[in-house]
Order: sequence, then C-alpha cells, then structure tokens
Amino acid sequence: MPRKILIVGAGKSTSYLLDYFLKKALSENLLLTIADIDIGHIPEGVKNHTACTVAQLDILNIKSRREHVQSHDIVISMLPAKLHIEIAHDCIDFRKHFVTASYVSEELKSLDEKVKEKGLVFMNEIGLDPGIDHMSAMQIIDRIREEGGKMLLFESFTGGLVAPECDNNLWNYKFTWNPRNVVLAGQGGAAKFIQEGTYKYIPYHRLFRRTEFFDIEGFGRFEGYANRDSLNYREAYGLQDVLTLYRGTMRRVGFSKAWNMFVQLGMTDDSYTIENSEGMSYREFVNLFLPYSPTDSVELKLRHYLKIDQDDIMWEKLLELNLFDSTKKIALKNATPAQMLQKILEDNWTLGPSDKDMIVMYHKFGYELNGIKKQIDANTVVIGENRMHTAMAKTVGLPVAMATLAILNGKIVTPGVQIPIRKEVYDPILAELKKYGISFQEHNVPYLGYNPDSTVG
Amino acid sequence: MPRKILIVGAGKSTSYLLDYFLKKALSENLLLTIADIDIGHIPEGVKNHTACTVAQLDILNIKSRREHVQSHDIVISMLPAKLHIEIAHDCIDFRKHFVTASYVSEELKSLDEKVKEKGLVFMNEIGLDPGIDHMSAMQIIDRIREEGGKMLLFESFTGGLVAPECDNNLWNYKFTWNPRNVVLAGQGGAAKFIQEGTYKYIPYHRLFRRTEFFDIEGFGRFEGYANRDSLNYREAYGLQDVLTLYRGTMRRVGFSKAWNMFVQLGMTDDSYTIENSEGMSYREFVNLFLPYSPTDSVELKLRHYLKIDQDDIMWEKLLELNLFDSTKKIALKNATPAQMLQKILEDNWTLGPSDKDMIVMYHKFGYELNGIKKQIDANTVVIGENRMHTAMAKTVGLPVAMATLAILNGKIVTPGVQIPIRKEVYDPILAELKKYGISFQEHNVPYLGYNPDSTVG
Repeated sequence: MPRKILIVGAGKSTSYLLDYFLKKALSENLLLTIADIDIGHIPEGVKNHTACTVAQLDILNIKSRREHVQSHDIVISMLPAKLHIEIAHDCIDFRKHFVTASYVSEELKSLDEKVKEKGLVFMNEIGLDPGIDHMSAMQIIDRIREEGGKMLLFESFTGGLVAPECDNNLWNYKFTWNPRNVVLAGQGGAAKFIQEGTYKYIPYHRLFRRTEFFDIEGFGRFEGYANRDSLNYREAYGLQDVLTLYRGTMRRVGFSKAWNMFVQLGMTDDSYTIENSEGMSYREFVNLFLPYSPTDSVELKLRHYLKIDQDDIMWEKLLELNLFDSTKKIALKNATPAQMLQKILEDNWTLGPSDKDMIVMYHKFGYELNGIKKQIDANTVVIGENRMHTAMAKTVGLPVAMATLAILNGKIVTPGVQIPIRKEVYDPILAELKKYGISFQEHNVPYLGYNPDSTVG
Repeated sequence: MPRKILIVGAGKSTSYLLDYFLKKALSENLLLTIADIDIGHIPEGVKNHTACTVAQLDILNIKSRREHVQSHDIVISMLPAKLHIEIAHDCIDFRKHFVTASYVSEELKSLDEKVKEKGLVFMNEIGLDPGIDHMSAMQIIDRIREEGGKMLLFESFTGGLVAPECDNNLWNYKFTWNPRNVVLAGQGGAAKFIQEGTYKYIPYHRLFRRTEFFDIEGFGRFEGYANRDSLNYREAYGLQDVLTLYRGTMRRVGFSKAWNMFVQLGMTDDSYTIENSEGMSYREFVNLFLPYSPTDSVELKLRHYLKIDQDDIMWEKLLELNLFDSTKKIALKNATPAQMLQKILEDNWTLGPSDKDMIVMYHKFGYELNGIKKQIDANTVVIGENRMHTAMAKTVGLPVAMATLAILNGKIVTPGVQIPIRKEVYDPILAELKKYGISFQEHNVPYLGYNPDSTVG
C-alpha cells in the first residue's frame, strides 16, 4: 500500500520539499497530492511525475477539503499560519498526522489533548527559523546537560541574506523572503531579553543601534539585532535559570546602522496612510519626513537631520536607492510609509535571475561544567542554488519533508501538538540534513557572558 | 425664580468656576448644586455658602442622576470626557442645556440633531485648550476675513508651566495638570501637519527634536513641539486652503531636548509592564534600558548611549532627578516604564506649597490682504495665585462658568452640539476674561510662512 501525503499550499518555498518526496517516491512507496487554490505555477517536472497528483482546492470549501484530508495518511500545510486550524480539526476527525513550518498558535496548542488521545503527531515549527534553530540548539543543550553541565547562556541568531558572489549592493542585502516582514521587523513593542541575570529592554527606535558582531570562518563578519521577545522558548528549552537569553536577526555589518536612517525618518511606520501617496515621487516621499525650508534641498535637510556627511557611506547607501529621484514615482494609493518604502526597496533589492541567497545561523551556548565556565559557538551557512532553489526553500522545506517521512515510518512517534525539541526528532533529521550540506561548525571559545563586540551607538 | 445650575464633578480644577458663580449668586439669582461621588474635599467656604448645595452623587445611579438633571436649568460636567454621554442623554430628555470643557466625542456629536430640535445649547471645549485657544484664534481669524484678508497660515501653541518666580529646577518644569498625560505626550502615532502646502510627518522618537522657538515680551523664550494631529480643526476654523497648519505644546527652551533622553531610552513606553518593578531602585530602572557590561557604570553607559558629555547640562538634568540613586525605590507593582518614570518625576516636579503655575499660549496668523502677505502673532501669559487657585483652574474654569451664565441669560442662543468658534460666544467671553486678567497681546510681524528659529537636530 502506498503512503499518501497531502501538501496543502504550494508556494515558492516548496521546491525542495517536493523534490525530496518525488526522489523517494519509489523507494519509500509514496504518493503525493499537491493541493492549492492556484495550481498554475507548479513546475511541469513536478506535475508530470507519476507519483504526483495536482488538485485545485479552495480550503474554504469544507467538503472538498475534508475529502482530501480523509483520503491521505498525513497532511502538510504550507499555507499562511492562520489557515492551519481548520485543516488541523479535519486531521483530528480523520486520524491523520499533521506537519507545518509555522509557529504554534494558541488555538492549535489547545488541541493537544485531543491529538494525544488519538495518538497523532502534529509537528510544527519544523522549518528554518523556527525549525533548524530549535533542533540544532536542543541537540547541543541536551549534550551539555548529559555531560553534567549547567546552562548559563543561550544566544541564537538567524539571517536570510544574499550569497557573497551575488552581494553587489552597498547594503549587502536583497529580499529573499517576504519584503513586508523585513520592513516591519522589530515593530510592535520593545525588544526584551535577559543578560547576565537582568532584564533588558530596547525601544524600536534604538533596536538597530544595539547590534553585536559575529565572525564566521570563510564568510567574514555579520551583525545581529534583537528579536522582539527572546524569552519565548525559555520554558520549552528548559532555560528558566539561564543568566543570558537573547535571540536575534543577522545582517551584514553596516546594514542596521543604515536601516536605522529609515527608522529615524519615520519611513517604516505602518500605522497611518498618506492621502496623496499615489504618484508621489521618491523625492517627495523623503521630504514628507523632513522640516520645511524655502531654500534648502531635500538632500541637505536629510544630511543635517541625520547628521551624516556627504562622504559618509550612509549617504552613498541612500543614493544607491535613488531616494532623491523626482522622476521615479510610487504607484500605491493611500499607502502607509512602510508600504511606500517597501516599493522603493523592491526596485533595488529584488533577487536577479542569476542571484543566489544565503542562510546564516549562529548559536552561543555558555555553561558550567565541574566548576569551570565554558562556551560553545556553533554556526551554519547555506547557499542557494538559484532563484528557484533558494537556501531559504531548502532549509524550510527539507526538515518539513524529513519529519513527514519519519512520522510515516514510525520514527517519530510521541503524540501531541509539538515543536522539534526532542532527541527522537532532532537527531535523525539533523543527521539527514548533513547529507544535504546543512551542518553546524562548533567551536570551543572562552566563556564571556556577554559580547565585547556589541555596539551601543 | 432662581436659576439652578448643576455641576457634576468637583475636582481641583473647579475653584475658579465655583467662585465665579458664588460671587454672582445674589446679583444673577443663581442656585448651585455641586454633585460628586466624593464630597469630602469641597472647601468649607463653598459648602457653607447659602446659594450652594452639595450632593453625594454616583452618576451610575441612573435614578438619582436623572432627578438631579431634571431639577436644574443647566448642567456642567467636569467629569472625565467618557462619562459625559449619559448626562447628555438626560439633558435631552429633560430639555436642559449642557456645558463641558472636554473634546466633543463622536457619540456626543451624533446627538446634534436632537439637541437642535429641542432648541438646546450643548457647549463643549470651552476650557483653556481646547477653549480659549478656539475663541482667541477665531476672533482674530474672523477679523482678518472681515477686512478682506485670506488666511495662509495658522499656528497655535499652549503650555502649562511653572511661574518664573517658582521656576527653580533645571528642567524649568513642574506638573501643573495630569502628570500621566505629560509622560505619554505625543504617543500613539506620527505627528501630522501642513507646512507651506505640503504634509509633514514626525515619528514619536523625533518629536522632541523638531521644536520651534517663540519669544514673549517679559517672559523670554519658549519652545514648541507638534501635537499629534494639527489638522483636527481645519474644517471648523474654515482653514481648508491654508498653506501652513500647525498646533503644538509649549515648554521652556531645553525641556524637549532633555525629555528626548527619556524617549530615546524607552522610558516613556506604556505598552508593556516590567515584571519585577516593585521595589526596583531608580538606578536599576535606568539600567533596564542600557546594554550589559561587566565593568562599566550605569552612568558611563548612559552617557555613551546618549552621547552626552559629563559637563553637558543634559547630564545635570538627569542628576537632578536622582536617576542614578540606588537607595530610592519605586513602589509600583507590574508597572509600565511610563508609570515608573512618572513616579520618579513626581518626586521632583510636584508643585510645592508656595508654587504658582503659568499658562502660555501663542498664535500665529499669516494672511494676504490686498496682495500683501502679513502676519499677526498673539500671545497670553496667565500666572496662578497659589497651588489651589492655579492659572490652569482659572483658564479652564472661567470660560466654562461664563458660557453657562451666558446661556442662562439668553446671550448664547444658537442650538446644537458645538464648540466656541462663533462670535456670539467668543466676543462676550473674551471681553469678560480680560477683566480677569486674561488677554492677548498682538504684534504685527513680517510674514515668513515658516519659523527660521525651528531646530531640526
């Protein structure tokens, strides 16, 4: 009997996911159904594979959705997170396992008891971040504990960047994922973390001036800024007593300082709309945020406002975006400043046809063993193959696919709504990811408890 | 027949309001009822006045509230704005006029038709700001129009400050009104205004660095920062075509630059609570917002973070607040940063027993007359008598009282839910306020269209 996998939602991020299953279709006896509301963009090579069926499915069509769930053995949802819950209910009704790469919502979490009763595995947060970060961190944390060590510090940073060979703009950045998330990053409240036993708070308008540096052999230096809530996984990781807990986002050095110019100007604000946004030039957009002057140019006003010199690289970064161009227009109606800025950035930061992306992840583990404080730094770098087969799609899609097969093969058996923090899950998946070139380099370094390379502009 | 006035809510701001009515009780044949949930704090001299009755009233007690409304000729609500609406409904039911110093809510505005049908006057925004600002501005705007002028610019600034003779701290500031409003000032979205025909937006974290200066003869220099929405009264004032429209708050020069330190640190944030706030020292509070260091002092970290030298007056301002004291503790449980900052400031900025407050208001009117651009600047300064009889209580209470009597005497007759922007209202009240020492100095100055003394740090 073939094992039948239903994949709901087949966006750009599913290339590796589909390839993984199709390559193993014969040896593992798999049949794949790809269900999406729009099936036009699914590649021919996938569509025409003998083990693959493509179905046009509107997940709001309850009858059709339930029929699909009922006729498969396991369901993967690659839809936006808020659409998972209905499919999850179907999976419980028809006793099907369920896999997603999304954060566990409160609603989904509340199904845990029912899921356990039926002996099902609902695996979530099994992509890159969240996903590989959980697995790689927990593997090292558990190992430290097995050796008798006591955790003191955990820091974790992930970034989606452009590969060094395609890194050809002054920002060392291109959009490799949802641009809107990049523009709004860090908004919605102060960033909160713990350092050496004390809570620390960074307001949004200071976030990009409180970075720290990381060096990765062969790839040079990176910087990280704090995520909004670093304390989310304190319980799940068993780090309630840890002195330092900090999670963040990685960029190339200098990105944050330059991005801070947009923050300072107010261009990342998404809370109000500009009435006359449609047809506004880039130059007029910039001038919205600068004081009036009957004589001074927009350029001079901005340089004075942000206190940057004409020969400052910050200034070059703004020029590179054509920010002062009065012929380039924004075609958005009643747009927020954030939406208008996104448009301007997309003009410049969209991956070109031959561009490759790059994923970087960096963990720090501080611990005490036999009275001695120690630290392990671990990092991984993944480079994409091309614009379709990105490092992002690879690092999100492969863990999802591997977890799905492991559940079908009875390798992951503990029931419940869960995230991949148990050995049963992370050990085999991390081992298999290695074969696909995704592995962590570990370095024993002196314990510091803090990063001396952190900047406090 | 005596005319019966019901005053609901008798807080600190009602001293002048009550005095005004009681002094005129005999000549104007007035009977006053002061209704409050807590009547303990009403002064003996007021309570024992023959024309005055004091009633303990819970406005959520519908029966008692309606009996009170029914048995009077006019009702003044000095309660918080959100509590007006129920009393307003009672006033319609029993055909009573209604007066408040609060902003007109959408709910209240929606009663306009009913109020007009019954021929009632519902006068709102008749305190200081809003209130005296509307009246003094409209008197000059209407005069300019009557002369054939076309309005080009309107700017208006108000501030509640401490009188020069009691101005003895480095911030040149003490709390003369609700401290919470001062700490949260400017939050909730970007400030929006129009200057020389273009929209301008200032994000909160830049608000206190975009000030402009004003000189008032005999009182020296002040500064102003933008209110959140300067465009609120565009229609009401008939200024739809004006090139510059800007409203703001006045402080002594240097306040905003210093206040900006709190904003930059994140201390004015009211959106999250600090778990371990109770018993936290001032010093620990400051350290929440600074990077961790195993060696550097909180003082040095803050100076470096905000880029201020040890001999900078900004630094002296922080020291004056005992911000680095580790013995002074904050007794608030689960408090927000804003609440904790407020506590620290109240320690330093509370009006002393012999302190007097000061109200300043500054308007600018730009217009074109016979092809020539002109400008009128108008300002007023009001000094309080003592901690009970403050300039704030005087400038809020007197216009409310005068409007109430004018309605009773048939001097204000136009029915509807309204604000004091018509001649019928502002002419007699501004004339009477003059007798109480509240008057505007006007100066003809060259038209500029912008303020060359505006700082854009």
